Amino acid sequence: MSLLVVGSIAYDTIETPTEKRENVLGGSAPFFAYAASFFCPVQMVGVVGADWLPEYTEMFRKQNVDTSGVEIVPDGKTFRWSGKYHENMNDRDTLETQLNVLGTFKPKLPENFRRSQFVFLGNDAPATGLAVLDQLQGADLVVADTMNLWINTTRPDLDALLKRIDGLVINDSEAKMLTDDLNVVTAARKVLTMGPKFVIVKKGEHGAMFVSENEIYIVPAFPVENVVDPTGAGDSFAGGLMGYIASQGGKLDSETIKNALVYGTIAASFGIEGFSFDRYKQINRSNIEERREAFQTMAAF
Amino acid sequence: MSLLVVGSIAYDTIETPTEKRENVLGGSAPFFAYAASFFCPVQMVGVVGADWLPEYTEMFRKQNVDTSGVEIVPDGKTFRWSGKYHENMNDRDTLETQLNVLGTFKPKLPENFRRSQFVFLGNDAPATGLAVLDQLQGADLVVADTMNLWINTTRPDLDALLKRIDGLVINDSEAKMLTDDLNVVTAARKVLTMGPKFVIVKKGEHGAMFVSENEIYIVPAFPVENVVDPTGAGDSFAGGLMGYIASQGGKLDSETIKNALVYGTIAASFGIEGFSFDRYKQINRSNIEERREAFQTMAAF
Repeated sequence: MSLLVVGSIAYDTIETPTEKRENVLGGSAPFFAYAASFFCPVQMVGVVGADWLPEYTEMFRKQNVDTSGVEIVPDGKTFRWSGKYHENMNDRDTLETQLNVLGTFKPKLPENFRRSQFVFLGNDAPATGLAVLDQLQGADLVVADTMNLWINTTRPDLDALLKRIDGLVINDSEAKMLTDDLNVVTAARKVLTMGPKFVIVKKGEHGAMFVSENEIYIVPAFPVENVVDPTGAGDSFAGGLMGYIASQGGKLDSETIKNALVYGTIAASFGIEGFSFDRYKQINRSNIEERREAFQTMAAF
Repeated sequence: MSLLVVGSIAYDTIETPTEKRENVLGGSAPFFAYAASFFCPVQMVGVVGADWLPEYTEMFRKQNVDTSGVEIVPDGKTFRWSGKYHENMNDRDTLETQLNVLGTFKPKLPENFRRSQFVFLGNDAPATGLAVLDQLQGADLVVADTMNLWINTTRPDLDALLKRIDGLVINDSEAKMLTDDLNVVTAARKVLTMGPKFVIVKKGEHGAMFVSENEIYIVPAFPVENVVDPTGAGDSFAGGLMGYIASQGGKLDSETIKNALVYGTIAASFGIEGFSFDRYKQINRSNIEERREAFQTMAAF
């Protein structure tokens, strides 16, 4: 059993209504990998610059995340993103993006990563995802994320990618943008006609929904009272979800899918209680199980 | 076991992106009463004008809703509301409001309504709710709704009402407005300090949340693909919820509360599939149970 993630690795500068943190670790691959690592070993592929800190390699090693696929560009700088959250802690403005080494990233999978059974293509350019798919040897389950930028600027690549993946994880607003449909369920059904066998719509503080041809599963968000930093919540959600599915050998029966949605939700709920990986570093699988029990009391009927 | 609702009765004119209906029955009391009537007998109190149609009295009689508390003002006109829904079918603009007989409404409970065990105060002026409470003789459970209008214009009355009710049903945006808190859970907790023992936050297409001092229960919305008219969804939700609680003798243990949230959700999901009471008139309790089963498959874990 092996779970591969390919995605951005970032140094984020984040302002919330009460705090600011500069150059903290972020990006789709790290958030996905850390959340997934509570459930199974993870292989991470991405690119960073000479400013990459060995402490991050060590943090991931302890979590059983193999970072041998993280390319370090000696004369480059790591991708940087800077954003500011509104009072509601949901909406945010991007203040600055410096692509740096991500701008010319060509993913090269280490030989032992190419036979990964479970693959997540983080929120990179669809061309990056296509390049990864060309290097894989018979993955069982490929799930991708996407975003408004790619929907608006690289639609042909995105369409090609959609035809080659099993599942798409997407925000509700992006699902509506991708399909020109304002109802989240019918929008998800339209995405199914573009290729994926299932769509998972992320609704932030309102939970998530899985839609396939004959199935719909829904889970509310775990109610977090002290949201410190929502950055990476969607990637953490995907990480918990895919990590759990991988730990179950890739089963996609209704119980596994619903549990995967729940574990994704719980993983994300911890992540947003701190900046960067602050909260994750305080918890282990048993904390996740405790919160899952509490969630069951709240939401199971 | 008796469930009383006091609220507005309206003739609504509704525009959606695809259709328009003029002067169809609406208002908080009718939507609540019809949804609750799938679970238990209901007593309805409100006011209408000479334009009240006997067919509505007959519709409610068939549903075991006692309309003897509906005052008919012979020289008056029924309250009218007109609104237009946006493309997303969630946001709407109020085009016109004619208070008519509702403007001078002084609720007078029939003698046999005053000993009702379960009481819902629909979205009227808080003074109306207070006048109802003064006529009640030892109700077991009093739940009220409120809205932005009363939060902004009659806050002292609203504060007085909050101190005398057991539960408040409120929209998420209104909970935030009432408490100046943008997190739905902490906002709900602040409402608890104003009087109610529990708060139920309605989040429309995103479900609902019950918050008391030591409990949180959450339920997603049932995914409706063909939303025809969302008018009255919140009142229908409250009706299904209170109707179920009344049918269980007013128990407020965790299972009953979660089931009540689910039945409220299911009742509302049918209501919005048609204008006014069109869809309700096609269904019965067994349709509700069928959809509850489907919902369990989707959302129980």
